[in-house]
Amino acid sequence: MEITVTRTNSPKVKPDESSLVFGHEFTDHMFVMDYKEGQGWYDPRIVPYGPLTLDPSTMVFHYGQETFEGLKAYKAEDGTIQLFRPKDNIRRMNQSNDRLCIPAIDEDLFLEAIKAVVKIDEDWIPTSPGTSLYIRPFVIATDPFIGVKPSSTYMLMIILSPVGSYYKEGLNPTKIYVEDEYVRAVPGGTGYAKTGANYAASLKAQVEAHKKGYSQVLWLDGIERKYIEEVGTSNAFFKVDGKVHTAPLQGSILGGITRDTSIELLKSWGIEVIEEPFTIDDVMRWHQEGKLEEAFATGTAAVISPIGILGWKGNDIQINNQEIGKISQKLYDTITEIQNGKEKDTFDWIVRV
Amino acid sequence: MEITVTRTNSPKVKPDESSLVFGHEFTDHMFVMDYKEGQGWYDPRIVPYGPLTLDPSTMVFHYGQETFEGLKAYKAEDGTIQLFRPKDNIRRMNQSNDRLCIPAIDEDLFLEAIKAVVKIDEDWIPTSPGTSLYIRPFVIATDPFIGVKPSSTYMLMIILSPVGSYYKEGLNPTKIYVEDEYVRAVPGGTGYAKTGANYAASLKAQVEAHKKGYSQVLWLDGIERKYIEEVGTSNAFFKVDGKVHTAPLQGSILGGITRDTSIELLKSWGIEVIEEPFTIDDVMRWHQEGKLEEAFATGTAAVISPIGILGWKGNDIQINNQEIGKISQKLYDTITEIQNGKEKDTFDWIVRV
Repeated sequence: MEITVTRTNSPKVKPDESSLVFGHEFTDHMFVMDYKEGQGWYDPRIVPYGPLTLDPSTMVFHYGQETFEGLKAYKAEDGTIQLFRPKDNIRRMNQSNDRLCIPAIDEDLFLEAIKAVVKIDEDWIPTSPGTSLYIRPFVIATDPFIGVKPSSTYMLMIILSPVGSYYKEGLNPTKIYVEDEYVRAVPGGTGYAKTGANYAASLKAQVEAHKKGYSQVLWLDGIERKYIEEVGTSNAFFKVDGKVHTAPLQGSILGGITRDTSIELLKSWGIEVIEEPFTIDDVMRWHQEGKLEEAFATGTAAVISPIGILGWKGNDIQINNQEIGKISQKLYDTITEIQNGKEKDTFDWIVRV
Repeated sequence: MEITVTRTNSPKVKPDESSLVFGHEFTDHMFVMDYKEGQGWYDPRIVPYGPLTLDPSTMVFHYGQETFEGLKAYKAEDGTIQLFRPKDNIRRMNQSNDRLCIPAIDEDLFLEAIKAVVKIDEDWIPTSPGTSLYIRPFVIATDPFIGVKPSSTYMLMIILSPVGSYYKEGLNPTKIYVEDEYVRAVPGGTGYAKTGANYAASLKAQVEAHKKGYSQVLWLDGIERKYIEEVGTSNAFFKVDGKVHTAPLQGSILGGITRDTSIELLKSWGIEVIEEPFTIDDVMRWHQEGKLEEAFATGTAAVISPIGILGWKGNDIQINNQEIGKISQKLYDTITEIQNGKEKDTFDWIVRV
């Protein structure tokens, strides 16, 4: 299928790069493709960024049948546009789609679409340190029908947002609350999929953690309420006695692309990574024994977010004197420099537009 | 606050009552109210039914921050319009809103809004047996922002749909698959709330059950995978040796209004109702011992849906010879006749418009 292009007649004023915040401003164009049962995905097109017009009965407003992805484009010093592991995002989106009964999207066309819409708005890619163009593909169920069943029509959109750092305070270690009341996901549920359900379910815990003075929550598993799962919407890593622990992918947590990137890099540096279940009690014991050297979260938006304090059952433990750990800093620097083209891409993670 | 009214200039042709299906057609008007942080809910209004115009970055498309309700209006033979337990729906919607970090809605204004929009479209209330006007209030998060946090703006809408019976085949016993792979909800999650997340998570199991020849799934708990939870999007009841068992409300299942109605009616008929956890193994044992007399699901859309076959680990058990049980039939008849005004409302469930 050919992607048709309709250019805007009224380009917007681009925001000042120094004051970019995450996810508030969008570029001049977007990619759209429709799906209809019996016809498949059709009419891939780039059009001026603009609102959707949907019937109030549209399924996505009622039953949350929706999936999304998040990835970034960077402009290297030589002007080439770099996407970071886009094929992994595309593959994961189809995994999410499968869980949500949304028809799969052709992966080559999907990559073509990302490249095309980023290319047309390439002047929107910021170049200051820490900035990038955030790419948000998402699918919504569009049947105007309020019965509970998979929709027979969908819309895939790709919108673009020039972004600064996710956390305004930069790479400062965060204060994290270990959540013991709310549950994000369990095996058999949707935890491994990027779908609204997981994020909707997480809001209440986040709000209550904020009220207690923490910036995010550390999720424990929903069955035994003791195994470490994720931090907010990121994967969690703990460096203990020289080795790095992170939760295995068993259906309830998201297979983060920055998670995988971090594991690959750590291994390449000769650091052992242990993807086995471990508990909050393990973490507390490691801390007491003086073995807990660093903790950090990984995700596309923030890349690496060091954890400075962990609050559990009324006690706050301090990790690495609330300073950024060596591994956290090295991962952040290496990943962002591969992304922006300053570091060599020895893992074949970059796709050029 | 005063509800303003803008009437349509182009009323639609009403559908033929004999061919109504569930949730496909909507009336001439809808209720809308907006929320903004700092201002609260404002501008309650009845306007012509019509599409929403939303930015593609609107939060509800990405993070599923949405809640809904479902209730029905009936026209009695004397022409009075009857709502069934609307205050319970309103109270539950605010419980759902609390779980989803959506600001509470004034309950009196909410009831006023339901009455007003039903009144203006009262000619749309069908009167044939089994028909009614389905009322769908829903709230969506409307911030144009793709960061994960509660929205600062929302929209409450109430739309109306004239409906026939939910199941086309009428009160025929259904074939239900006991789900052992997928999980709908666990304590600590959103299972007790009416929010998209639970419905999105349920679609895959429903689709796979259909492929196996079943019309719905029976959900087991997500922790031990043995306790009976719900049937599809309905509550589940089992009549055993004269007593009726249903799962207790412990956070993972919806507190159905038809569930509560059924419990109240059963008790008033002198039938013991046991709201204690019970397992699929209990159900199978009761069946083997010849004590399993009836099974049925309860919900607003279908009211009572008898279960004829239960498929578990490759075996199909037949309940009550796949016939409608006496209790199932009596509950269906009593509830629908209270709803349509033929039976006396001794429980004070009816609110007249």
